Amino acid sequence: MRVVGVFDSGLGGLITARLLTVRAPGVAIHYYGDTAHLPYGDKSPAQIRSYVREIVRFLVEAGAESIAIACNTASAVAVDVAQAVAGSLPVFDAISPALKLLSSKTFPEPIGVVGTYTTIRSGIYGEHLRAKGYEVKELATPVLVPLIEEGWVDHPATEAALRTYLDALGEVGTLLLACTHYPLLLSPIRRYYRERGWNVSILSTAALLADAVAEALAPPVLGSAETASTFWVSDLSPRFLQLAAHFWGAPLELRESSAVMLS
Amino acid sequence: MRVVGVFDSGLGGLITARLLTVRAPGVAIHYYGDTAHLPYGDKSPAQIRSYVREIVRFLVEAGAESIAIACNTASAVAVDVAQAVAGSLPVFDAISPALKLLSSKTFPEPIGVVGTYTTIRSGIYGEHLRAKGYEVKELATPVLVPLIEEGWVDHPATEAALRTYLDALGEVGTLLLACTHYPLLLSPIRRYYRERGWNVSILSTAALLADAVAEALAPPVLGSAETASTFWVSDLSPRFLQLAAHFWGAPLELRESSAVMLS
Repeated sequence: MRVVGVFDSGLGGLITARLLTVRAPGVAIHYYGDTAHLPYGDKSPAQIRSYVREIVRFLVEAGAESIAIACNTASAVAVDVAQAVAGSLPVFDAISPALKLLSSKTFPEPIGVVGTYTTIRSGIYGEHLRAKGYEVKELATPVLVPLIEEGWVDHPATEAALRTYLDALGEVGTLLLACTHYPLLLSPIRRYYRERGWNVSILSTAALLADAVAEALAPPVLGSAETASTFWVSDLSPRFLQLAAHFWGAPLELRESSAVMLS
Repeated sequence: MRVVGVFDSGLGGLITARLLTVRAPGVAIHYYGDTAHLPYGDKSPAQIRSYVREIVRFLVEAGAESIAIACNTASAVAVDVAQAVAGSLPVFDAISPALKLLSSKTFPEPIGVVGTYTTIRSGIYGEHLRAKGYEVKELATPVLVPLIEEGWVDHPATEAALRTYLDALGEVGTLLLACTHYPLLLSPIRRYYRERGWNVSILSTAALLADAVAEALAPPVLGSAETASTFWVSDLSPRFLQLAAHFWGAPLELRESSAVMLS
């Protein structure tokens, strides 16, 4: 189980993949970014399930020994499809690790959940956490993804946006970052709370997914298979290349492949 | 020709429609926002042409006496389809009025063009203006639409984003705002240039489209048909209602209608 197939509607899942390579240094990533069909948030569940079926088949044929669904939307509607195609291979989704951790351990309340409009409107985190007895505050924070994709992590625009959003969320005991992109904002978010003297536990669905995959990679992978990583996208443009390098933290080769033939 | 059919992939076209009601106070708007299929930028031309065919048919059947395509992407690929469906009714697109004005009159150079990635990558403004002998600087400014849709027009995040973008564009003689949403940023953009003591002519494709439609409404419409305006969207959500009121400048009734049956 050294080769992990990671996929996302776009390139945000590269952040999860990168976190995974930090936690399990010898792992090889087979990444598929369905850039031709992003964002999944505005597609029907049936359409997303079709995409996921094709992508998982592609990744398994390419040699993936486990599958990590980095995309929140695909995780919400297509885990069963991914598992059906993956057969006996383990499938990890972006939602379960956070819900499992918050259920098995008690975190300080209220739990603030931030994500895209699609994720927050789906109510998936809020419903599960309220069912566990948590007080939950949810907030859609839609400008953060475009700001991160512009490369503006330490930019006054992002700082101003974060301030407005975190002010609106108010005091929380725990903050759940429920979006692939948000781990990149960990420093400015920590800074925001530190400046206010608030002690907030910060969890990220992307990092918890990477943790879950890394834990399952037993015995620990310590080789140097990273050079065996391969990255495909369904639509390749100069902008995507730039974004991929930004999310991966280093230039990387992107190959275009129409694994998903459905349009 | 009192009833103007205006359509857009989303709600940004309401800004154009509002500008039109200012220029031609008696006009009635029949608006269609194809919110179920936004953004058009990531769809194929064939798919956009299908949507446009259905939308124009819907607006004409609803009583529109002329058609204004507020959407840049649809204007780039589907004017002929719209005209074919509209028959003898006049069709106005979002691109031609700006190109016509810049061709018929000489504006100070260089011409800066800002818009979404899709618009800038299409090169439609740059190519035409260079062919006319203009020096042109193009810049994609993708975070502006999400910021405007968040309602953050006079927000430090938007000010910081504008500063970075306009700094990157550098000195221009004329700035062309090539996106439905950008008229809302006119004040902060003017402020930016004023603070630097630069005398920049600012044009907006949305305002020039409204001008073109208003000019064609001869003799001048001066009634009060505005109450006859009707607004449809293909997907209605609380967020869209909020956004529509924000763009229109007042609460408005949105009706859901699947004029576009294709998915």
